[in-house]
Amino acid sequence: MYRKILMRMRMRMMNATRKVVVGWAKEYKRYLSTTTTNQILLSPPLVSVDLPEIWGSTSTLYHHHPSQSPVSHAKIINGKSIAEEITSRVASNVKRMKESIGKVPGLAVILVGQRRDSLTYVRNKIKACEEAGIKSVVAEFPDSCAEEDIMTSLSKFNEDPSVHGILVQLPLPEHLDEEKILNLVSLEKDVDGFHPINMGNLSMRGREPLFVPCTPKGCLELLLRSGVEIVGKKAVVIGRSNIVGLPIALLLQRHHATVTIVHACTKNPERITCEADIVVTAAGVPSLIRSSWLKPGAVVIDVGTCPVEDPSAEYGYRLVGDVCYEEALSIASAVTPVPGGVEPMTIAMLLCNTLDSAKRLYGFT
Amino acid sequence: MYRKILMRMRMRMMNATRKVVVGWAKEYKRYLSTTTTNQILLSPPLVSVDLPEIWGSTSTLYHHHPSQSPVSHAKIINGKSIAEEITSRVASNVKRMKESIGKVPGLAVILVGQRRDSLTYVRNKIKACEEAGIKSVVAEFPDSCAEEDIMTSLSKFNEDPSVHGILVQLPLPEHLDEEKILNLVSLEKDVDGFHPINMGNLSMRGREPLFVPCTPKGCLELLLRSGVEIVGKKAVVIGRSNIVGLPIALLLQRHHATVTIVHACTKNPERITCEADIVVTAAGVPSLIRSSWLKPGAVVIDVGTCPVEDPSAEYGYRLVGDVCYEEALSIASAVTPVPGGVEPMTIAMLLCNTLDSAKRLYGFT
Repeated sequence: MYRKILMRMRMRMMNATRKVVVGWAKEYKRYLSTTTTNQILLSPPLVSVDLPEIWGSTSTLYHHHPSQSPVSHAKIINGKSIAEEITSRVASNVKRMKESIGKVPGLAVILVGQRRDSLTYVRNKIKACEEAGIKSVVAEFPDSCAEEDIMTSLSKFNEDPSVHGILVQLPLPEHLDEEKILNLVSLEKDVDGFHPINMGNLSMRGREPLFVPCTPKGCLELLLRSGVEIVGKKAVVIGRSNIVGLPIALLLQRHHATVTIVHACTKNPERITCEADIVVTAAGVPSLIRSSWLKPGAVVIDVGTCPVEDPSAEYGYRLVGDVCYEEALSIASAVTPVPGGVEPMTIAMLLCNTLDSAKRLYGFT
Repeated sequence: MYRKILMRMRMRMMNATRKVVVGWAKEYKRYLSTTTTNQILLSPPLVSVDLPEIWGSTSTLYHHHPSQSPVSHAKIINGKSIAEEITSRVASNVKRMKESIGKVPGLAVILVGQRRDSLTYVRNKIKACEEAGIKSVVAEFPDSCAEEDIMTSLSKFNEDPSVHGILVQLPLPEHLDEEKILNLVSLEKDVDGFHPINMGNLSMRGREPLFVPCTPKGCLELLLRSGVEIVGKKAVVIGRSNIVGLPIALLLQRHHATVTIVHACTKNPERITCEADIVVTAAGVPSLIRSSWLKPGAVVIDVGTCPVEDPSAEYGYRLVGDVCYEEALSIASAVTPVPGGVEPMTIAMLLCNTLDSAKRLYGFT
C-alpha cells in the first residue's frame, strides 16, 4: 500500500519532469532559432534554463554522450577570436543605437593607485570601449586617497545619465572598505555584477541578476560557443573567489551541472578534479593542474594568469595559467590557452554588460 | 631559474598559510574559551572562519582523522534536545533583556491561505515564541488576497519598532510575486535570511549576512555541537533549493568543506554521495538515501520531512525523511532522526535570529 503510494508519487513526479524538460528543450530550440544578427550572446537567458527540483529514480531523463576516450590533441578554444566577434557585434549594436536614438553606452571606471596590473587592465578596457564606440571615463585617485573622495565620485557616476556602467578596479588599497564602496554602485549600473543583490540573485533559483560578473560570464560563453554540453555534467571549479570561482560555480549550477568547488583546504584536489567533465580553474597558481588532474576528454577553462619572469619575453615576463597547457592538450578534449583564452572574454563581457545596461535604460532592443 | 622562482613563491605561500591557519586556530580556541552562559550558539561568527585563498602543494596543512571504518551503530543526533537547550537559553536572554531594558524581541508572521503544513509550521513557531517570551503577531490573509494587501502589511511591520523579525510563510499562492514580497522585508528584520542581500553576503567571502536562513543554520549547529569536523571534509548537499540546499552548501563552504551539490539533473548521485564525509539531504523524496549511498562513518543530516499515509499513526500519516533511517544507522557515524532531528532546530534558529535582531537594534549584549 505504502509502496504503491510512493510509486504513484514518483511516477507523477517523473512525468511532470519529462513534460517540463521537453517544454524547456522546445523553448531553448525556439530561442536559438530566433537568434538574430543583433543577438550578441548564444547563451539563453539565465532564468529560462531553470528546471523544477523534481527527482526521478532513473537516469533516463537526460541523454549524455561524453567523449571519455583519450584524444590525441585537444581543441584549442580561441577566446581571442570569440571575443573579437562579440566585440564587433557590440560595436554594430552601439552604432545602431546611436543612429536610431542618438545615444551611446557609457562606462565609468574608478582607478585607485598605480598597480601595474590594474593600470594595464584599465587601459585595455578603455581601448576596447573606444573600439566598440562606447564612451568611457576614468576617475583616477592616488593610493592614499580618502574613502569619501571615491564615494563622492561614485555617487556622481550613479546620478550621471550618460553613464550606464560603473566599474571599480580591484583590488583597492587596504585602507579602503571594498564592501562599502562596491555596495554604493547603483544596482542598475553594476556591470561587474559584484553588488550583493546581483550576487544573491545569481545564487538563487528563479531569480535573475541584472548583471553577471564578466569573467565567469566569459567562461560560460566559451563553453556554450564551443558546443560543450553542461546539463548533468560533473564540473569542478578550482578557487572560490567572489569575482571568479564562486560566480562561475553558481552559473554552471544554473546550467544544471553537478558542481564541486575545490579550494585551498580541499584534501586531494587532484583526485576530485580528475573526475570532472568540465574544469574551470582560477587558483592563480602557475601550472598547478598537471595531466594527472584531468579526465581524458575533459574540457578545461583556465582563468589563471600569473606573470612569471622570463628574460626572453618582450617585457621580461610572460603570463602562465593554472594549467600545464602542453600536458592538457594531450588529454583534454578542449582547452583555453593563456593568454588568448579567458582574458579577452572578460573585456568583451564588460562591453556586453555596458551595452545591455544602456539598452535596458532606453528600452532599446 | 624559473623552477626556483616558483619553488620560492610556493614556499612563501605555504609559510603564510601555516601562520594564518595557526592564528585562526588560536582565535577559534580563544573564542570557545570565552563562551559564556549568555552565548547561545557554539558556532564562531561566520567571517572569523575565513581563510586566505593560498594554495600549498602538500596536504599537511590540516590533519584529519576521519573515522572511515564501519561502525555497528551510529550516534543519533538529538535535534530535539539541542533545540530545547537553545530555546531555553534564548528564553533566559529574553528575560534578561526585559529586566534590564524593558524590551522583548518581537516576531511578525505573514500567513497566506490555509495550507495545512503552513498552518502547522506557523502554529509551532508562535508557540515557541510564547515559550521563549518573544512577542509574536500573525497577519493572516485569504488565498485570494491582493498583493498590495500583503505589501501594506509588510511595510507596517517594517516600520513597527516592536517588531524585530518578519517572516513570510512560504510557499505563497501562485498569483503572488514571491520575489517582490520577500525583497520588501527590511534587511534588518529578515530573520529568514531570504533577502537577496543576505543571500549575496552569505555567498561572498569576507562578507557577513545579517541573518542566516534558519534550517541551514540549524543543520550547521547540529554538526558543530556534535563535534563534527568540517574543515577539509567532503560534503555533499542533496537538493539546491533557495531555502535549504543552496544556503547549507554556502555555509559548509564557509567552514571550508569541499562541497558538491547533487540535484535532480545529477547523473549517478549515489556514487557521488557515497564519497562524502558529511551528507546533508533536502531532496524531499522519502527514503531516497539507502545505505549504498553512504560512506562508512559518514555524518548524515536529514532535512527531508515528507508525510506518508500510515493508518496506524495518530493522524493517519507519519513523517519520513530522505534517508532510510535504519540503514543509515548501520553505516553512518551519526544521523539525525525524522522527526526530532533538523526540524526542531529550524524553530530554535528562528528564535535566535529574532533575539539577535532585537539585541542588534538595542545594542544589548
